[in-house]
Amino acid sequence: MIFHPANWAFRSSVWCWRSRAVLKAALKASDVNGYRWYSTPIRGGVTGMEEILARVVAPLPTYETRDKSPPPPESNSLEFMHFYGSLDKEDKLGFLTKLSQDFGVDHTGVSELALRLLDAQLRDLVTILQIEDRLRYGLTPRYKQLLNHISRAEGGVKFLVDLRADVIEIISSKACEAPHIRDLNGTLKSLLSEWFSVGLLRLERITWQSPCEILQRISQYEAVHPIRNWTDLKRRVGPYRRCYAFTHAAMPGEPLVVLHVALTEDISDNIQSIVRELAALDFEEDVNKINAAIFYSISSTQAGLQGVELGNYLIKRVVRELQSEFPHMAQFSSLSPIPGFSSWLQGLLSQYKKEGRGSDLLSEQEWKEVEQATDSAPGSAAIEALRKLIATSEWMRSERLTRALEPALMRLCAWYLYGEKRRGYALNPVANFHLQNGASMWRLNWSADTSPRGVANSCGIMVNYRYFLNETSKNSALYLQNKDIAASEQVLGLVSQFQKSSKL
Amino acid sequence: MIFHPANWAFRSSVWCWRSRAVLKAALKASDVNGYRWYSTPIRGGVTGMEEILARVVAPLPTYETRDKSPPPPESNSLEFMHFYGSLDKEDKLGFLTKLSQDFGVDHTGVSELALRLLDAQLRDLVTILQIEDRLRYGLTPRYKQLLNHISRAEGGVKFLVDLRADVIEIISSKACEAPHIRDLNGTLKSLLSEWFSVGLLRLERITWQSPCEILQRISQYEAVHPIRNWTDLKRRVGPYRRCYAFTHAAMPGEPLVVLHVALTEDISDNIQSIVRELAALDFEEDVNKINAAIFYSISSTQAGLQGVELGNYLIKRVVRELQSEFPHMAQFSSLSPIPGFSSWLQGLLSQYKKEGRGSDLLSEQEWKEVEQATDSAPGSAAIEALRKLIATSEWMRSERLTRALEPALMRLCAWYLYGEKRRGYALNPVANFHLQNGASMWRLNWSADTSPRGVANSCGIMVNYRYFLNETSKNSALYLQNKDIAASEQVLGLVSQFQKSSKL
Amino acid sequence: MIFHPANWAFRSSVWCWRSRAVLKAALKASDVNGYRWYSTPIRGGVTGMEEILARVVAPLPTYETRDKSPPPPESNSLEFMHFYGSLDKEDKLGFLTKLSQDFGVDHTGVSELALRLLDAQLRDLVTILQIEDRLRYGLTPRYKQLLNHISRAEGGVKFLVDLRADVIEIISSKACEAPHIRDLNGTLKSLLSEWFSVGLLRLERITWQSPCEILQRISQYEAVHPIRNWTDLKRRVGPYRRCYAFTHAAMPGEPLVVLHVALTEDISDNIQSIVRELAALDFEEDVNKINAAIFYSISSTQAGLQGVELGNYLIKRVVRELQSEFPHMAQFSSLSPIPGFSSWLQGLLSQYKKEGRGSDLLSEQEWKEVEQATDSAPGSAAIEALRKLIATSEWMRSERLTRALEPALMRLCAWYLYGEKRRGYALNPVANFHLQNGASMWRLNWSADTSPRGVANSCGIMVNYRYFLNETSKNSALYLQNKDIAASEQVLGLVSQFQKSSKL
Amino acid sequence: MIFHPANWAFRSSVWCWRSRAVLKAALKASDVNGYRWYSTPIRGGVTGMEEILARVVAPLPTYETRDKSPPPPESNSLEFMHFYGSLDKEDKLGFLTKLSQDFGVDHTGVSELALRLLDAQLRDLVTILQIEDRLRYGLTPRYKQLLNHISRAEGGVKFLVDLRADVIEIISSKACEAPHIRDLNGTLKSLLSEWFSVGLLRLERITWQSPCEILQRISQYEAVHPIRNWTDLKRRVGPYRRCYAFTHAAMPGEPLVVLHVALTEDISDNIQSIVRELAALDFEEDVNKINAAIFYSISSTQAGLQGVELGNYLIKRVVRELQSEFPHMAQFSSLSPIPGFSSWLQGLLSQYKKEGRGSDLLSEQEWKEVEQATDSAPGSAAIEALRKLIATSEWMRSERLTRALEPALMRLCAWYLYGEKRRGYALNPVANFHLQNGASMWRLNWSADTSPRGVANSCGIMVNYRYFLNETSKNSALYLQNKDIAASEQVLGLVSQFQKSSKL
Repeated sequence: MIFHPANWAFRSSVWCWRSRAVLKAALKASDVNGYRWYSTPIRGGVTGMEEILARVVAPLPTYETRDKSPPPPESNSLEFMHFYGSLDKEDKLGFLTKLSQDFGVDHTGVSELALRLLDAQLRDLVTILQIEDRLRYGLTPRYKQLLNHISRAEGGVKFLVDLRADVIEIISSKACEAPHIRDLNGTLKSLLSEWFSVGLLRLERITWQSPCEILQRISQYEAVHPIRNWTDLKRRVGPYRRCYAFTHAAMPGEPLVVLHVALTEDISDNIQSIVRELAALDFEEDVNKINAAIFYSISSTQAGLQGVELGNYLIKRVVRELQSEFPHMAQFSSLSPIPGFSSWLQGLLSQYKKEGRGSDLLSEQEWKEVEQATDSAPGSAAIEALRKLIATSEWMRSERLTRALEPALMRLCAWYLYGEKRRGYALNPVANFHLQNGASMWRLNWSADTSPRGVANSCGIMVNYRYFLNETSKNSALYLQNKDIAASEQVLGLVSQFQKSSKL
Repeated sequence: MIFHPANWAFRSSVWCWRSRAVLKAALKASDVNGYRWYSTPIRGGVTGMEEILARVVAPLPTYETRDKSPPPPESNSLEFMHFYGSLDKEDKLGFLTKLSQDFGVDHTGVSELALRLLDAQLRDLVTILQIEDRLRYGLTPRYKQLLNHISRAEGGVKFLVDLRADVIEIISSKACEAPHIRDLNGTLKSLLSEWFSVGLLRLERITWQSPCEILQRISQYEAVHPIRNWTDLKRRVGPYRRCYAFTHAAMPGEPLVVLHVALTEDISDNIQSIVRELAALDFEEDVNKINAAIFYSISSTQAGLQGVELGNYLIKRVVRELQSEFPHMAQFSSLSPIPGFSSWLQGLLSQYKKEGRGSDLLSEQEWKEVEQATDSAPGSAAIEALRKLIATSEWMRSERLTRALEPALMRLCAWYLYGEKRRGYALNPVANFHLQNGASMWRLNWSADTSPRGVANSCGIMVNYRYFLNETSKNSALYLQNKDIAASEQVLGLVSQFQKSSKL
Repeated sequence: MIFHPANWAFRSSVWCWRSRAVLKAALKASDVNGYRWYSTPIRGGVTGMEEILARVVAPLPTYETRDKSPPPPESNSLEFMHFYGSLDKEDKLGFLTKLSQDFGVDHTGVSELALRLLDAQLRDLVTILQIEDRLRYGLTPRYKQLLNHISRAEGGVKFLVDLRADVIEIISSKACEAPHIRDLNGTLKSLLSEWFSVGLLRLERITWQSPCEILQRISQYEAVHPIRNWTDLKRRVGPYRRCYAFTHAAMPGEPLVVLHVALTEDISDNIQSIVRELAALDFEEDVNKINAAIFYSISSTQAGLQGVELGNYLIKRVVRELQSEFPHMAQFSSLSPIPGFSSWLQGLLSQYKKEGRGSDLLSEQEWKEVEQATDSAPGSAAIEALRKLIATSEWMRSERLTRALEPALMRLCAWYLYGEKRRGYALNPVANFHLQNGASMWRLNWSADTSPRGVANSCGIMVNYRYFLNETSKNSALYLQNKDIAASEQVLGLVSQFQKSSKL
Repeated sequence: MIFHPANWAFRSSVWCWRSRAVLKAALKASDVNGYRWYSTPIRGGVTGMEEILARVVAPLPTYETRDKSPPPPESNSLEFMHFYGSLDKEDKLGFLTKLSQDFGVDHTGVSELALRLLDAQLRDLVTILQIEDRLRYGLTPRYKQLLNHISRAEGGVKFLVDLRADVIEIISSKACEAPHIRDLNGTLKSLLSEWFSVGLLRLERITWQSPCEILQRISQYEAVHPIRNWTDLKRRVGPYRRCYAFTHAAMPGEPLVVLHVALTEDISDNIQSIVRELAALDFEEDVNKINAAIFYSISSTQAGLQGVELGNYLIKRVVRELQSEFPHMAQFSSLSPIPGFSSWLQGLLSQYKKEGRGSDLLSEQEWKEVEQATDSAPGSAAIEALRKLIATSEWMRSERLTRALEPALMRLCAWYLYGEKRRGYALNPVANFHLQNGASMWRLNWSADTSPRGVANSCGIMVNYRYFLNETSKNSALYLQNKDIAASEQVLGLVSQFQKSSKL
């Protein structure tokens, strides 16, 4: 025999000892967690967890009886939901670790099936298909069945979305190294992907007549350009604006992903013209002035739906909606922030200062302006002065400096967006999102977001990712598969200026 | 090496040669199928099918790039849906066979992974978990991805439900022996199970104010006690009646499973008192006269959702709904038909005639009544005479005979329901359904359905399956796992009379 | 003193003695009318009526306290509604007569105010305005207040609509000559006109998704071209069809007036092409084939809203709706039946036979065809033969006769529509309706309704009343004020042919 | 002849010369009012007004043709609405004056009919009824027809509601003495009363799921206890709270009258416990803790619906609603503010100071406390000191003073509510409203509204008007007709204490 399933028990018991400590703490803390709903008294901590899990996570039926087993009582789901809800953060970690380790896949069974599959290779296809199907079933974690049942309880789907948010947090915080948690994440993601399949989503246009509950959430979730008050909110759903969201039957009143659109004459190069307060809110739209749709904010609201594609589909669905409302509309574009550009630039300056390569970044003339403006010596001092100017947004105060730095900041920013990568894809997350969707990097806009936040994040620069509808499929495939970025001449021009100046 | 994946190509090509013939026919028929939506001309038949499948069923991305591949263009889904819709029945068979055989699981890849999994058994758990995850992914049929995408198109979910109905028909008609079709069925069932998970369903009470579209469908789908006209329909949604359905966001206006309920003083023992026409329809319900809820008809409407549990959940959901409307209601019961009892009884009579065991069925006195009524000799002749009486429903015309046969028919029917099995479960499908749900076989009712249909099917007998709410979980598990049937004293009494008389 | 209010009591008691007899009958019948809702026992008949009326029709508050009197208890309204509902037809007549006579205007008070008004003429305007306002209040019938309160009860508005239907029937059947009933009618009409003012109506498009309750009513109310079954009904709300209704918040689920529209390429000249069954119902509309909107049926559903303008407003509202859905649609027309044409024609033939003026109706050649076809002698016999042909629709069976009679029937029909009048307005009620709305009499269509009903009513002829939107105001005013009929050249040509041939 | 209709022209021209001046100003101002919608140029000012009015206010049809006259074109209504909307306040005064004076009742015609009516007194009743009907018609102002047509235009009903608000303002500001304006007001009120009849209103429960548009309005309109922010608003529609409004089909999204209800264990004696912020908002209601419904705020939103009874009906409708939701609820009561009590009290103190009657208000002991607390001499000085304490809310700062003043303030307040009258009805408008509705003055609550506003308005006292459902009819009638106030023993006790101490 080449494998020893008997060893599992031992091995899995050493996994994640860091979480053991947590569990010990949980043991003490558990008394605090009042638990009144169910008659069975919970003794708390590891014991309580084990007891509950053993009770509510029913064993998988055998392959033969898989269609003949009654669903577990709904109280199992409710007990699980209630118990989990009563845990604090550390207990949750322990609980999820336990769930994923002890109630996952039956590895012994799987390896036996793998052996049978290999044995069957010389036999007929019927047998092979049958063993494959058993294998498929055998690879189901035991807890998957419970998760499925939870989805049927009232509020169950939302519970699972939030549960996955916790799982993601555990993984990204590296609180636990157990690979089982990744399996749990994978199982949850695959279930949620089915339940939140686009065919089951509903596009809702949010207006001032929408339920207050939804509008308040829209207001809370808007992270890109925060909404300050009722008037601000009313404007975002008023004339020349559209606000769309995907909602789901199992989570009523909860927008999953929200897209704000401005209807404009030309592709906007400035965000204040969109989100600043207008005098009146009750005027009529003039359809003749509407030629372009500008996606100026898109926000996902459910951390637990990470990796479940929604934003992309929402943009495409909204494009269809707008085309049917405005048959002649032909321009679709984002007006997007560039989070991270300033930080990246400051890092770059620090590094070039160290390496003495300041002249690779700015031209002689440009450096002179910096030196004059900051009264600093050429070289390191000037680089450091520039870094400070960027860090403090001080450069904006001098009109002359602003004019002088524009070309440099624009070509640096173009490079940041186009040239900086992570695993081959655009480093900037907003860029990565739109490029995946098949948009092209169309135009960098100077002085496009002059709010303190805009200047601090990206020196006031914003970018349009433009959606040419008959090219998005192609662009998306090229980007995802070949990592090619579709970009306009303006962007490519700026990139090449950067490359020349920095001798790349 | 003990397996030869290289052999697959050959082997799979010999599968299902019966369907080959079909494909040849399809080759000829294909010219007929006009195909105008897409510019690519379809040359028809096998070639057309192959071409289309090759185009629209994209290869599975590799495991590594599975989250990095763009969704195929929506036109793929539309083309598939349109093409399939244009096929006639035989072409569909060929097409589905091809799809399931040539675009299913990559068996070679799977067996390689199985080998790697076995190799890894001595190594660490991380590796094992990773290979298991690859294996899980590797067991995904290539067409699953397309099915997923189709669900996102408008009308896509309904298309897949209907597609599965075709697949089920192919399997049950044994038109094709290919095991691949079973895989396709399994894949579809698992997808549909997720999409039609109870958490995503919506309970709708159907009233006279519901959309005509839904009411017409309710009317069409009602198979148990057919609806004859508007007045009949109006009564089923009028006072002392409730009609509930599950609907799904992806199939608007389409009731998936429909439950008709009568609100009565006592548990009904007669269906005509429920479905016969009442004089008036506009009177008010008197809540004091409502003590029991009688489920007198439940119909699933989508053949393609076979095996996706809906009826069970609907009954439970409706019980909750009724409890909240009538807090003091304590009696929940079906009033169910017994399809197949007459046929079974006729078969039994034929067999006992052959075996000369007439006396095992009826008592001496009972046979005498039959002989007198039919003017026939004892023994074979009387048995045959009785068979004919049953077959023609003639026995009902004689009050005396009716009275005489009641005890015999009741105990035979009790046995049919309680004692006749298929793979250990109740042979009668309605019994099987309610027993699975955890109901108990509560009361057989003589002269309960005196319509021609009722007499022809089950000698006018009907049965109540009663739902004792705090026992359904237990009953359901006992039945599904141990094949134990919960039954009342009345039923058990009748069964034991039958056993005594038939010397079982 | 020039007037004697003291005489009222006597005078009003002699009014309507015919209804006295009715009341006597009511006296006997009243025992039958069970009356359980209210504790006060009703002794029945006149006494019961008087008692109830005295109790529930509160006296009008004085002018000074009119804003300071509490509303009567709701039970008054309910008692009135219930009591009236329990009456049979004859009792209703007696009851309404009593109500309108004994609980109407205080004539003495009014004449006193009239005197005060005349006295005040030399005084200041303030006084005059004040007395006028008192007079206005004094002219309010006492029962008006009760009617107002009834409108607030649940179902009260519908009750009053039906009450007025009874009043109208009484007036038109001349069951009672009492002028007081006319006053009651006037009061009801004025109240209903306010409550059913167009600003309070809601336009609903009826589709297959509309509540069954509404569609069944649409089906019942469609008097012009009766709806035979579900399929027929489904087609009327399917592609290339529109069905609109006005509904009212106080009568939910009740369409008040219904308009059926066909969307066509050209103005239809045949009704069967609109209402005959189409093969399929689920195809899509091709917007390029929609140039005209044909109003092929309009039905008022509430007899009690007679004289409350609804149909006219519905047509205009629907035109606006269609223009917004099909901006380029420019043709709006009815395709209308001509009820009464055959009867009128038969009357004309009888009269001309008597007067020996047959040659004024048909040409020599036309008569010859009739004589040949019917094998009858010229003159009286031929006229009588033609009358019979028309009465029996027999003429349709002979193609030759059909061809021969077409010109004659067309010009006679044109005259019937255009030339025959009642109090100066078009005798034909459908013509009168559309001409009032401002339509013009646009085209007579031969062989337009070949159903037995269509041939029997109007020899198969139908007419288009066309709505030229920028002329309807003018046409309407000219018709209503000057009795001028707007008509097309085709119609005028036919009329002048008639006039020539008949020597008018 | 005793009257001279010829004089009218002259007389009406001298009415309201104050408004003449306004019109002169309008003449100048008119150029400013851009007027682009209609082709006819408006020359502005009096001339423009006259011209427009002459054009859009069509003459009344004669009595005979009243049912035969086409409705005026909709453009008349739109022109009127637009023109009026473009006027500033002063122009509106002039315009309405002109409309009501020159386009009102035809006084000559009315007086002629009055004469005919008197002449007819000796003749038969038919004639009298006919002349009365003509008189009724003759008393219709010419502009009534236009107002009716405006109600049919989109937004027309709301326009008329706002128009009446302007009319009411003119009357109450006494900007114009013209009695015609009162006629216009009466006509508008009578039309609006019909359109806003309770049968046409819709009760809406406002929740957090209601449209934001409505909730924002609810927030704006809440005058009794102002709403500060979203959380505050959310609480008012959250658990243990209900918010109901009447809406009207012709004014969608516009609550007409709003009632806030708290569901409590006992009848509340303190407003802060109702409107202060709760920790959580998402808990469930415990139905066992709900015994009483407290109406803690009712607001009418439309000035133009003054005198159209809505609040009374809303309270009664809500009581029915609550009874159906909580069948065992038996306590219904307001918790009402007492606006005006402090002002009244200060007035009283000033007067008593003048009259030297301080001892009629407070007992010796009470005065002592005041003197001590304020360090003031007895008599006038103490009275003035007390007045100041009240005016500044300073007395609240001293616990001792508070305790000392409680009995005095309570009995004074009871008197203010119960004994102070205006035209025989309660002077306090809130008291008058609830007493009209039939509530009884049930309990004065000390320290019930300790907000600065509450202390300033009514020394922190609030009052419960309790609705004993089977007494409201009787109470309402007694109050409205006899001016009797239903009050509890507590209130009557306080009143009698006041009377004793003040020697009334």
